[in-house]
Amino acid sequence: KKHYKVAVLAGDGIGPEVMAEAEKVLQLVADKFQFGLTLTPALVGGAAIDATGEPLPAQTLSVCQQSDAILFGSVGGPKWTGLAPDKQPERGSLLPLRKTFDLFCNLRPGQIYPAFADLSPLHPRVSSLGMDVLCVRELTGGIYFGEKGRSDTDAFDTQRYSVAEIERIAKVAFEAAQKRSNKVTSIDKANVLQTSILWRETVERVAKDYPGVTLEHMYIDNAAMQLIRSPQQFDVLLCDNLFGDILSDEIAAIAGSLGLLPSASLNGSGFGLYEPAGGSAPDIAGQGIANPIAQILSAALMLRYSFGEEDAARAIEQAVQHCLAQHIVTRDINPKSTYGTAAVGAAIVATL
Amino acid sequence: KKHYKVAVLAGDGIGPEVMAEAEKVLQLVADKFQFGLTLTPALVGGAAIDATGEPLPAQTLSVCQQSDAILFGSVGGPKWTGLAPDKQPERGSLLPLRKTFDLFCNLRPGQIYPAFADLSPLHPRVSSLGMDVLCVRELTGGIYFGEKGRSDTDAFDTQRYSVAEIERIAKVAFEAAQKRSNKVTSIDKANVLQTSILWRETVERVAKDYPGVTLEHMYIDNAAMQLIRSPQQFDVLLCDNLFGDILSDEIAAIAGSLGLLPSASLNGSGFGLYEPAGGSAPDIAGQGIANPIAQILSAALMLRYSFGEEDAARAIEQAVQHCLAQHIVTRDINPKSTYGTAAVGAAIVATL
Ligand SMILES: CC(C)[C@H](C(=O)O)[C@@H](O)C(=O)O
Ligand SMILES: CC(C)[C@H](C(=O)O)[C@@H](O)C(=O)O
Repeated sequence: KKHYKVAVLAGDGIGPEVMAEAEKVLQLVADKFQFGLTLTPALVGGAAIDATGEPLPAQTLSVCQQSDAILFGSVGGPKWTGLAPDKQPERGSLLPLRKTFDLFCNLRPGQIYPAFADLSPLHPRVSSLGMDVLCVRELTGGIYFGEKGRSDTDAFDTQRYSVAEIERIAKVAFEAAQKRSNKVTSIDKANVLQTSILWRETVERVAKDYPGVTLEHMYIDNAAMQLIRSPQQFDVLLCDNLFGDILSDEIAAIAGSLGLLPSASLNGSGFGLYEPAGGSAPDIAGQGIANPIAQILSAALMLRYSFGEEDAARAIEQAVQHCLAQHIVTRDINPKSTYGTAAVGAAIVATL
Repeated sequence: KKHYKVAVLAGDGIGPEVMAEAEKVLQLVADKFQFGLTLTPALVGGAAIDATGEPLPAQTLSVCQQSDAILFGSVGGPKWTGLAPDKQPERGSLLPLRKTFDLFCNLRPGQIYPAFADLSPLHPRVSSLGMDVLCVRELTGGIYFGEKGRSDTDAFDTQRYSVAEIERIAKVAFEAAQKRSNKVTSIDKANVLQTSILWRETVERVAKDYPGVTLEHMYIDNAAMQLIRSPQQFDVLLCDNLFGDILSDEIAAIAGSLGLLPSASLNGSGFGLYEPAGGSAPDIAGQGIANPIAQILSAALMLRYSFGEEDAARAIEQAVQHCLAQHIVTRDINPKSTYGTAAVGAAIVATL
């Protein structure tokens, strides 16, 4: 019997509430699909700062190192916004985790579900055409990690990309497209940036190995526009770290259902960090009304990508779809709903 | 009697058609408001490449240097996309013009006009709340102009900002806000970039001179999201060169009326380049159906910012509003309309 060890970093705000539901779902599918599971909680973000002074304590890092994957909740809140950038809950935990585990590949699906098209802030004439995109974002390079510095009178940041870094993320995008609608839109600013010119050339070269996949290039400014005008034209978006940061949040806004959107950040050996696309939502924390679905779907992605437990992953996704179809949803999805976090979690467990 | 010299760079695609209408409007207001006007045409973009091999020939630059402002049409098209980046029509003309004339300040207004809210791709529940933003974008610094380079295996770009560069653009934003709704939202990625930390600190300092203006900071990823979820929350957006490039196009998409949006790029001495926010639209060029309003409103901005002819500028803007109210619009605004470029231009002239 296979056995998986998961570091559970619930974090701040609604993190702990929604994580509790994801843990129940995981325990259940472990029983059902006959694999062993150890869930080890560890402090992260503001909760870790309060307890230890650090957003990512050595103890937490060590739990992660001894695990097969990280299930991450969400971090941050008004209490910690005054801290220096690299001491802040979000940046101070996510960036070192990405770098330590070489999580170079961030996958952020974004859909407009036909039954919930009205959640989208887009006009029905646009949202009724649907959207089903996967944003593939490079996550350990670019301007995030290049040389930076400052004096009293100026500051600089460096964006650097190597062919090898671009190749490995491009391959992920093309492989994902093969399992979807065979189209990759590569985002750059090749009319201005040298890194973008290299990006474009390298992606062109990688594309030759995937003759069944259509490749197009789009400038970031145009992409920011096209996503709003006709999001149905996209399948896989391939982005560098900064452009992917911007577009994946734009896609989430267009989907209109942050509470339903999971994400996966992977390295080349199956290790990954899985987290909801939304934030810690301190305004509704502790009220039992947060939507647990993005966290539960993140757990499903973990089962798929890190553990290869495709059946268990799909079972969770189907249970979620079933609850959505039955309108068992929290208030962010339907303002008139009376279901809370635990009720939605319980319904998913019951369906399973 | 005052006399103004304008370099008229119509460019490619629909540029010449819409420029012809703007010229008529300018000649008329010159008569009416009693100032002299010399309009000197010069080649730019693809048209200039075809004639001289260069997107910005020395002759054109010299016409600009001898003028008080540049009225720019639009450049680019499928014919020239294969050229090297700095030979391409858009980049090869706009970036050197910005740098030569130190046009550090780009102003891009974006509105959802109540009567045309349906043009917006946003849901009526969002678009009915309206949008009236001014994007103030730094235009001569940042990653566009920092040191860049590449080898066979990697490439880099440098984003650099000095306190002085940030101060001068921040002042423009606060002064604009004083004439609008007294709110500045400064966009950065201060959780990752050193340039953004300097940006934030400097903007905070400049804000002290404008106690009546509310300042808020927003991360670029969140801004890309908030613009879609509730664009009515914004007044003035203050952005660096790259973030402004992305958000101003996102704003244009949200407005849904590219054909109505002008822009101004200014230096510190009243010189400016004025151009429509939309592109050269080669697909509809030569058909007489392009919307001339963005070009005409760009001319109005020129009268206001470069020549101080506020009355003439306002007269043009009112004539445009009047035609919009009478539904004298091209097909991009109303698909059923039978008015073409010349008819809309003539109606604005007649109203004046
Ligand atoms: C917290 C921040 C550094 C991070 C990023 O920019 O990558 C976040 O916005 C994200 O997208 O996960
Ligand atoms: C053509 C390109 C270099 C330019 C830019 O990125 O500034 C354009 O997108 C713009 O916004 O005027």
